[in-house]
Amino acid sequence: MTTASVITKETIAHFFMELQDRICQALETADGSGRFREDAWERPGGGGGRSRVLSDGGVIEKGGVGFSAVQGEATAATLKTLNLTEPANFFATGVSIVLHPRNPMVPIIHMNVRYFEMSTGQNWFGGGIDLTPHYVVDEDAKWFHHTLKTVCDRHDPAYYAQFKSWADNYFYIPHRQETRGIGGIFFDYLKPSDEAHKAALFAFVQDVGNVFAPIYTHFMAQNRNLPFSEREKNWQLLRRGRYVEFNLVWDRGTKFGLETNGRTESILMSMPPQANWVYDYQPEPDSAEQQTLSRLKKDIDWIGR
Amino acid sequence: MTTASVITKETIAHFFMELQDRICQALETADGSGRFREDAWERPGGGGGRSRVLSDGGVIEKGGVGFSAVQGEATAATLKTLNLTEPANFFATGVSIVLHPRNPMVPIIHMNVRYFEMSTGQNWFGGGIDLTPHYVVDEDAKWFHHTLKTVCDRHDPAYYAQFKSWADNYFYIPHRQETRGIGGIFFDYLKPSDEAHKAALFAFVQDVGNVFAPIYTHFMAQNRNLPFSEREKNWQLLRRGRYVEFNLVWDRGTKFGLETNGRTESILMSMPPQANWVYDYQPEPDSAEQQTLSRLKKDIDWIGR
Repeated sequence: MTTASVITKETIAHFFMELQDRICQALETADGSGRFREDAWERPGGGGGRSRVLSDGGVIEKGGVGFSAVQGEATAATLKTLNLTEPANFFATGVSIVLHPRNPMVPIIHMNVRYFEMSTGQNWFGGGIDLTPHYVVDEDAKWFHHTLKTVCDRHDPAYYAQFKSWADNYFYIPHRQETRGIGGIFFDYLKPSDEAHKAALFAFVQDVGNVFAPIYTHFMAQNRNLPFSEREKNWQLLRRGRYVEFNLVWDRGTKFGLETNGRTESILMSMPPQANWVYDYQPEPDSAEQQTLSRLKKDIDWIGR
Repeated sequence: MTTASVITKETIAHFFMELQDRICQALETADGSGRFREDAWERPGGGGGRSRVLSDGGVIEKGGVGFSAVQGEATAATLKTLNLTEPANFFATGVSIVLHPRNPMVPIIHMNVRYFEMSTGQNWFGGGIDLTPHYVVDEDAKWFHHTLKTVCDRHDPAYYAQFKSWADNYFYIPHRQETRGIGGIFFDYLKPSDEAHKAALFAFVQDVGNVFAPIYTHFMAQNRNLPFSEREKNWQLLRRGRYVEFNLVWDRGTKFGLETNGRTESILMSMPPQANWVYDYQPEPDSAEQQTLSRLKKDIDWIGR
């Protein structure tokens, strides 16, 4: 009989820190010319992080890969959410990524994996990966979702359907009645029931983190040299405007960070290098742009399409 | 003995509609080549508006002047704010303006005048004007604030100090620890105590609306031909990024509109044509950009400076 080994918050933070290293290396290799610049920072209340930004690369126009491990007194709102009546400390660690490519035929991507632990004992994992193509290509969307499903299926046959639906609902822009992109997976509050379960959840989160680089470098290699004109560039800039709208108006993580005095430059690494707005822009009927808009809906079965 | 004539919501809405006409005409004349395009719209719950947008003008790169007069059932949140326990209808009318100029030496400007009335009888005025220069010029800031103070002083000697301070606090970006620009005046919940008081408040709001065109056409004429280089243009695009951050993250009106299913394109007429983000941008010490940043603070006495 073996005892499940204890997964400590240090073990998890260490994995995330190495994940950041491996992802940055894979992205630099795939990009060719771009290099990440690192800012190490400390949080006044405890802990800190390493923000890495790549600007003006061969493929990536602006991208951020952030790692953080912070701790301190939980806010009143957090205590209330957890039904805690006494002060308590929190610990939070994770990796967050948003990459904006230069070529409009390469999609925007976002990934986050995170772990949260209270001094009172509660702890949980969260995360997700979602893709925002400027132009939706069905076979790419199918490959992306199939790859995520494969990862999910290795851990729980129910995960993909559940987390795909969660992503559809989370990455949604109500005031535009559009999804941000073609979704992906999103999960939160995955709470272990015991140490063996915690090890299983951690293994899942590790797999999600590990599949990020293969997914995105695939799209970088496949689409980096696809031709585009001013038309596609203009559309990309408008879609980036929607990305800004989602992140600043609706994204819980961004709002929470900005409202609780987080490190602004690290939180807003997700902003595109440039975004445009045109009043009441309407793509031409039957255009590629219109076809993309028609696919920015919840509950599309990308794999079975 | 005379009785104060009754100021009806129709009277106020009619003034606002004509104000929109007069402002658009003054802006077109000052711009030279730009023309407003109008979208008339109806609100499913009652009322509607006229959104007017000018794009690619001689001075104005993108600007919106909106009028609306809407009514319907008050939301639960509104009822709660007003301590009302029974369902009630609201009526709201106003003019909202944001103008983004082409030349970085011309400031961004915002103006809003509004009137709100409940079927239960409560009613109040609100509004304001604030200026966001890409480069703060002390004498222009002084003239702007002095012009607003002159308008305020005609109605109440306490108004300017009170409403200037309110603007400093309202047009503030906490996550940047910067004001949006050099402020101006902001006021809300100006509730009439009787009909004579209502006439006085309406007269003040009319004066605020009427001073907008003289103020902005002054800056258009004065600065439209000032020389600028790529450096000033880049700085303008970064400052527009801050404008986007304020409007989408902090502006109560924008958030309320987007969260309550308002007409998105009218609400987001305030978005700039283009905005840029650079990770952790730091202007050079003693540069004009750094000097501008040093002036984006609350409680600067622009007139006495």
